[in-house]
Amino acid sequence: MTGLFVRASGPAERDRRRQAKAKPGCNVVIRNIDRVPEKPVEMDGARGVRMAMMVGRADGAPNFALRHFRVEPGGHSPRHSHDYEHEVYIVAGSGEVLLEGAYRRIGQGDVIYVPANSEHQFRAGDEGMRFLCLVPVTRNCGEPTPGS
Amino acid sequence: MTGLFVRASGPAERDRRRQAKAKPGCNVVIRNIDRVPEKPVEMDGARGVRMAMMVGRADGAPNFALRHFRVEPGGHSPRHSHDYEHEVYIVAGSGEVLLEGAYRRIGQGDVIYVPANSEHQFRAGDEGMRFLCLVPVTRNCGEPTPGS
Repeated sequence: MTGLFVRASGPAERDRRRQAKAKPGCNVVIRNIDRVPEKPVEMDGARGVRMAMMVGRADGAPNFALRHFRVEPGGHSPRHSHDYEHEVYIVAGSGEVLLEGAYRRIGQGDVIYVPANSEHQFRAGDEGMRFLCLVPVTRNCGEPTPGS
Repeated sequence: MTGLFVRASGPAERDRRRQAKAKPGCNVVIRNIDRVPEKPVEMDGARGVRMAMMVGRADGAPNFALRHFRVEPGGHSPRHSHDYEHEVYIVAGSGEVLLEGAYRRIGQGDVIYVPANSEHQFRAGDEGMRFLCLVPVTRNCGEPTPGS
């Protein structure tokens, strides 16, 4: 038996074949937040923020996308608002969130609802902060939501 | 100055007044998963599961609801399927999830996407398991999703 006849196998190959056959929206996903590569967030006003898409439109998620953010100590997301909401869970660390014009302390285990059109910003404290931030995959008028 | 003239004040009262004035969907929420009372899940097939609604339709969330589940050691959610998806994050502990007919090990930091109409069940291991489980607030045909 030569290399030509050795079929790829093992979990990664099985995952690849399963994904190739599955229909969008029908793919099971199990991914750990420590093992999905993160990319720098390059929006104006962001500093020291990295993001990993955990489940989103590319997986066929029909309604909402789950993203993992890692903010370095002293880093922050942009101060902005938009026409869709966030639901956020603080995985680790602590910091502040701007809501209704005031910065409020937040930390591990907090769930935060940021309504659509509310100005907001997440700032990490001295130990940094990790959080999940969920968005709808479409905005109110049906366009794709950025980062979903 | 007598008690009659003492107005309720402090953070709880301010929160109450803010909520009373706010419009549905416009309420900022910050809640910790350790401080929201949990209720037993009394569905057929569930054992040792408690749930707390963290953000849902009652808060005006327009698209998806975030719930916190605590499963005692050896406990499990119902083995079932339904016409809407789950996005899940394992907060602590470990266990197994039934997906595509097989039980797979899951633990802290795992994100799981359960597509609509996929049979699934969450089982806690010896240390129990805590997870966030998100659902859309309406099903595909526009009805309210149970537990949103």
